[in-house]
Amino acid sequence: MATIAMTERTRVRRGPKRAEYSRDTINQILDEALVCHLAANRDSVPMVQPTLHWRMGDQLYVHGSSKNGLFKALLQGQTGCVTVTLLDGLVYARSEFSHSVNYRSVMLYGKARLVSEDAEKQAALRQLMVRFREGRVTGQARSPNEAELKATSVLAFDIDEASAKVRATGPSCNPEDLAWPVWTGVIPVSTVLGTPVPWDDERQAFQQP
Amino acid sequence: MATIAMTERTRVRRGPKRAEYSRDTINQILDEALVCHLAANRDSVPMVQPTLHWRMGDQLYVHGSSKNGLFKALLQGQTGCVTVTLLDGLVYARSEFSHSVNYRSVMLYGKARLVSEDAEKQAALRQLMVRFREGRVTGQARSPNEAELKATSVLAFDIDEASAKVRATGPSCNPEDLAWPVWTGVIPVSTVLGTPVPWDDERQAFQQP
Repeated sequence: MATIAMTERTRVRRGPKRAEYSRDTINQILDEALVCHLAANRDSVPMVQPTLHWRMGDQLYVHGSSKNGLFKALLQGQTGCVTVTLLDGLVYARSEFSHSVNYRSVMLYGKARLVSEDAEKQAALRQLMVRFREGRVTGQARSPNEAELKATSVLAFDIDEASAKVRATGPSCNPEDLAWPVWTGVIPVSTVLGTPVPWDDERQAFQQP
Repeated sequence: MATIAMTERTRVRRGPKRAEYSRDTINQILDEALVCHLAANRDSVPMVQPTLHWRMGDQLYVHGSSKNGLFKALLQGQTGCVTVTLLDGLVYARSEFSHSVNYRSVMLYGKARLVSEDAEKQAALRQLMVRFREGRVTGQARSPNEAELKATSVLAFDIDEASAKVRATGPSCNPEDLAWPVWTGVIPVSTVLGTPVPWDDERQAFQQP
């Protein structure tokens, strides 16, 4: 299984047993999560913005307004950080200290590349739509026109300096706590899609069922 | 309604109509989300870690290993950034360009304060347990002992440089797209707790139902 070489930045120091460097694991986490948290420095202070992300091969994409300040900061050549987190469970232990959460996360470092070539930009935006289409009820939306493409910046990061961290088990328990009279276990946490709510574009209001 | 004064850093520039600076809105988002994304610079590169957060009054708390490298970096006096995001819906428009997501997010800047006073530290950790207790099935876990408290660092941020951004409506639509034959609307996204799965502490395995 292909692994990503760890660097000083991506080596997981706290809880190294939870670290994973396989491309498959990293890709699966990136593909399952819809939202990432993207950081860059602005005036030497990190700014973290949530945004949608998607993946094609070993490239991670984000998009936004071509006027997005964080994007501009990234495109000046600094190294940014993208973190993706899936919360999978609340872990209840006999001691408060051993309470935890189950999760899968990826942390990725890289310099952003502005996707300026038309074919790649349109392919990337189509791929973003695929993530939406899984939930679409009918039909296919209008493709972006030239003005819309111009108003949108697409940024790509190589997925080559990244690590994952995964916790997926029950609580730990010190031997001396075994008799402590409390329920232990995991309450699963998941993200679910609800019933689609249709919109009336003319009235600019949700349609009554 | 109390609002937080905006600063150059927290003024929302893209989509300013979605910006909210009321304390109530900011607090509600912080309280509903379990996970935040916390950033600080390490060797001048931002690092974003997911972690649990919780709030007491106008203080936002996080905790972790006392050896956590990000915490150490924050405690050297730099300004960190905490971003909290709740994804509420996928928004389907007639044009690909107008697709969007509904969300509520908070971005907070501040210098971390190490909670060193015993009473505040224990009160803060108890408050973290309250977030877990909502889902607990029975009993009460053992409180932390001295060694566990020492192994845990609690950091606090003043909630006084923060802004929220909220999108909670259907898609926008250009008049010329009104006839485009495609479903439009919102698919709600929510985070749900599942059925508790009990753990067998002696066998270190999930219990069979």
